[in-house]
Amino acid sequence: MAPTEKGFKAYAMKAGDGPNSYANNSTFQKRAVDSAREVIREEIAEKLDTHTLSSSSSTFHIADLGCSVGPNTFFAVENILEAVQLKYQTQGPSSRTPEFQVFFNDHSGNDFNMLFKSLPKNRNYYAVGMPGSFYGRLFPKASINLFHSSYSLSWLSRVPKEILDKEGPAWNKGKIHYSNSTSPGEVIRAYEAQHAEDMECFLSARAQEIMYGGLMMLIIMCRPSGTPHFDTLATATYETLESCLMDMTKEGKVSEEKIDSFNIPIYFMSPEEVEVAVDRNGNFNIERIQILPNVLTSTALSNASIFTSHLRAVVETLLKEHFGDEMLDELFNLYHKKVAEQPSKFGSGKAIISLFVLKRKEN
Amino acid sequence: MAPTEKGFKAYAMKAGDGPNSYANNSTFQKRAVDSAREVIREEIAEKLDTHTLSSSSSTFHIADLGCSVGPNTFFAVENILEAVQLKYQTQGPSSRTPEFQVFFNDHSGNDFNMLFKSLPKNRNYYAVGMPGSFYGRLFPKASINLFHSSYSLSWLSRVPKEILDKEGPAWNKGKIHYSNSTSPGEVIRAYEAQHAEDMECFLSARAQEIMYGGLMMLIIMCRPSGTPHFDTLATATYETLESCLMDMTKEGKVSEEKIDSFNIPIYFMSPEEVEVAVDRNGNFNIERIQILPNVLTSTALSNASIFTSHLRAVVETLLKEHFGDEMLDELFNLYHKKVAEQPSKFGSGKAIISLFVLKRKEN
Repeated sequence: MAPTEKGFKAYAMKAGDGPNSYANNSTFQKRAVDSAREVIREEIAEKLDTHTLSSSSSTFHIADLGCSVGPNTFFAVENILEAVQLKYQTQGPSSRTPEFQVFFNDHSGNDFNMLFKSLPKNRNYYAVGMPGSFYGRLFPKASINLFHSSYSLSWLSRVPKEILDKEGPAWNKGKIHYSNSTSPGEVIRAYEAQHAEDMECFLSARAQEIMYGGLMMLIIMCRPSGTPHFDTLATATYETLESCLMDMTKEGKVSEEKIDSFNIPIYFMSPEEVEVAVDRNGNFNIERIQILPNVLTSTALSNASIFTSHLRAVVETLLKEHFGDEMLDELFNLYHKKVAEQPSKFGSGKAIISLFVLKRKEN
Repeated sequence: MAPTEKGFKAYAMKAGDGPNSYANNSTFQKRAVDSAREVIREEIAEKLDTHTLSSSSSTFHIADLGCSVGPNTFFAVENILEAVQLKYQTQGPSSRTPEFQVFFNDHSGNDFNMLFKSLPKNRNYYAVGMPGSFYGRLFPKASINLFHSSYSLSWLSRVPKEILDKEGPAWNKGKIHYSNSTSPGEVIRAYEAQHAEDMECFLSARAQEIMYGGLMMLIIMCRPSGTPHFDTLATATYETLESCLMDMTKEGKVSEEKIDSFNIPIYFMSPEEVEVAVDRNGNFNIERIQILPNVLTSTALSNASIFTSHLRAVVETLLKEHFGDEMLDELFNLYHKKVAEQPSKFGSGKAIISLFVLKRKEN
């Protein structure tokens, strides 16, 4: 029992509520949450076992993993809460609606102060903040009824160690992501292995924390089944970011060594990989895999500014930590220009947003 | 069921970890925690009903109310946790030690980011942050096993409304606290009434949140029984602060109106008042009232700097909000000078630190 955050690298979203903050640049995630809304309601209505869940406590515990600073986490939580309330109500007056306690989880570097200040005033749940990596244990045994996570599981727990070994075959020189078509095969394999390890850590921890019969709703940006790693939206996104960094290198603004040692720990899994991981772990059944409308690619075609702001909100903290603060505006101006010049490159990038509904097996 | 923070004014301690921060100026509180240590261990060993508490969950839930940013909250929590573990162990191998979940509570203006970053690395409990005023509901019904609060209950939920009415009899013109010997009797009565109302809110909320048989440990800076309000350490402290503000008024640095409208919402209750409040509420038994060594007055005599820093850490946020940032250094330089000139005034100020142990009645 050592539930502390250890050995995990923290990748927080851009804090605060300024123009480049995550809070003001998470429209895509909001749309995914909206389109997930109905599916989540349906699944709760059909699959939630209120009898099992309410036997030991009169409180229903929800956790949002990788909540960032809102407001999407609040929309998602309210949707779940309404669906659970409805489920209890339809079971007749004898089934008393429980109280709700919601755990907002993210890395300890997340801006919890802002999250707490922006909590909805008229919420009908008890809100708490839970700092720590979801690749380790966060909650006591069998203490959570429903887990939710939106757009967070693509973040690996760390850059795979092999990638950072200058002498090894997986040294990703001149590149910042495994999805570059010229990255060595070893780089892809190192990312794949890290992802498999992380998924097992994630599922093992959740299997202990969730109550039998509890549900887990995971919204994940995936690559479509059968799509090679270098033919996805990630390739378009990170090759372009890479080329912007290279442009700055030519002007002496960023050193090549800095680029060599920088890698983005985001992995685009396929739905099949999720199925394999869940199967290997053995504690959950997949109840549903729903493909949600992907508004990301159409936004690339229609609005390069929003598309750029979104990427910036996601990776800014990481870039700042590695390259410093000063280069960010120029980098994203360059990026914006390239997106505006070649929107079809991004518009045709393969990516699907999938909602996975998992249910804890009764051992 | 509307468990949101509403209508309560938030008085956060000075954030961050700078030289004037609460984190670096809470030595007095640390000593109180240390001296409370043994008493808390004794009470847990004797009074904690592990049978009742562990029947519905394998997790033991602790909440520290008004935790600020540490490190005292961590010391207090670890002490409680060790005592509870010991209690379970002495009950033999059949009594399995539970997992621990600790809720760190303070106003949403508290620096939770810093709190989370300074969480002990090797803690053996699950830590969560719970923003909100403890004068309202914070937790679901019957969800907490043990409440702890150190030095927080002296803060009222707000300055009593009557004090801010210029036309009313409780207008505290030229004074910043009710303990001034020239404050009208109406001012004292307004503070007393606010305190009684707040205590009832506090006890009612906790009575719902704590499990039957659960314990509550409250460390409170009190005035000794039978001591008039204008003969306490508060009188020395706030009359002196007031006179420093007046000195600055004479130099045109602070306006008289600003002082008239400023009142510190801290109330020094007597142990009898606590007994009356608990009795009136009816949900708890007082198991023990222990007077702890008071190191505050001796520090006034021996070290004016530490004494001043302590007051500054406690009231700085409040002063800054009302008077602005620029005047603080000068104000506390003046204050320090006055403490150094007349240490006996503070050394003789009446104050006792009391630990109250309450147990939830089984209805």
